[in-house]
Amino acid sequence: MNDRLKKQMEFILEVDKLKKIGRQTYLSDASRKENDAEHSWHLALMAVLLAEHSNEDIDILKVITMVLIHDLVEIDAGDTYAYDEVGKASQRKREEAAADRIFNILPEDQARYMRNLWEEFEAQETSEAKFARTLDNAQPVMLNDATDGLAWREHEVKLNQVMGRNKNTHKGSQDIWEYVQNIFIKNVSKGNIIEE
Amino acid sequence: MNDRLKKQMEFILEVDKLKKIGRQTYLSDASRKENDAEHSWHLALMAVLLAEHSNEDIDILKVITMVLIHDLVEIDAGDTYAYDEVGKASQRKREEAAADRIFNILPEDQARYMRNLWEEFEAQETSEAKFARTLDNAQPVMLNDATDGLAWREHEVKLNQVMGRNKNTHKGSQDIWEYVQNIFIKNVSKGNIIEE
Repeated sequence: MNDRLKKQMEFILEVDKLKKIGRQTYLSDASRKENDAEHSWHLALMAVLLAEHSNEDIDILKVITMVLIHDLVEIDAGDTYAYDEVGKASQRKREEAAADRIFNILPEDQARYMRNLWEEFEAQETSEAKFARTLDNAQPVMLNDATDGLAWREHEVKLNQVMGRNKNTHKGSQDIWEYVQNIFIKNVSKGNIIEE
Repeated sequence: MNDRLKKQMEFILEVDKLKKIGRQTYLSDASRKENDAEHSWHLALMAVLLAEHSNEDIDILKVITMVLIHDLVEIDAGDTYAYDEVGKASQRKREEAAADRIFNILPEDQARYMRNLWEEFEAQETSEAKFARTLDNAQPVMLNDATDGLAWREHEVKLNQVMGRNKNTHKGSQDIWEYVQNIFIKNVSKGNIIEE
């Protein structure tokens, strides 16, 4: 077989493991928590549909590719919950080792492209990275709202925590940030998010 | 809130249900079957990585969008197993009704675009639709091979069935079709696919 295709298919099979990496967010019907592959699909579709709300001009194909691969490092490093301060301390080191292993399964040019794209997402400097992060922040807020704040209530999340977590959400899209803020206001008033 | 964003977010929340639509294909570790959202994520990533193997020039953004939405009709119509001849008889009618309901949650221009894109995928005439179908066919073959043919063995699938199901796989990519054929040959020799 074509050597490039062999490496590509090996990578595509390896990343099947993303479907086993659990997140803290419940599905909209609260039946179970979602996983990283489902989350990444959701973000990619959001990128297509919500591109018009980006504050800055974006290369939409780049945003989509970024969100499709942004959590692959969690195959080795695991999902670090947004409010787990202990886990977050070692997160970067674990994720870099994961990126070294996983992306290098690909042919060298694609390995470099995907690694750089992941670094670009992490660095949060380009318009694409900022918009991708806005989607990544808004999607669990949408789902948490749909379940009447179930994940927030379970973790006794405070308003200063969700505001801290979302301190850059406005940078990708002012429209989406307004949508997110409205959900916070509603869920504070319902007691699902704790205002201190 | 922005009326367009309201409709878009309503749609994005509605299609969360894709995560509950089960397929017959097992994950690579055989621990459980995958769902449509995971499958769609996998196809989108394949589209990005394997575009170079398309027989014809393709608009890669269009292929990705197509695979992200190609199974949304199954939210209402359910997944019809490739070898379920009874289910397939009513499949088209059920899926059209689903498309009418689901895509129309979007703002009118996006509803029309997504509906047309789904119709284009179904019609299998454009280079993008043919490549998307090739990915849609190859992905479960890859996973079935990884589980030593588990889904094939459970359903006692025959070679003429997989060949019939894959009669158009070569149209999107000759390279990927060769990859698929090699897997069929291996799994026939192992007895996972029944040669009659």
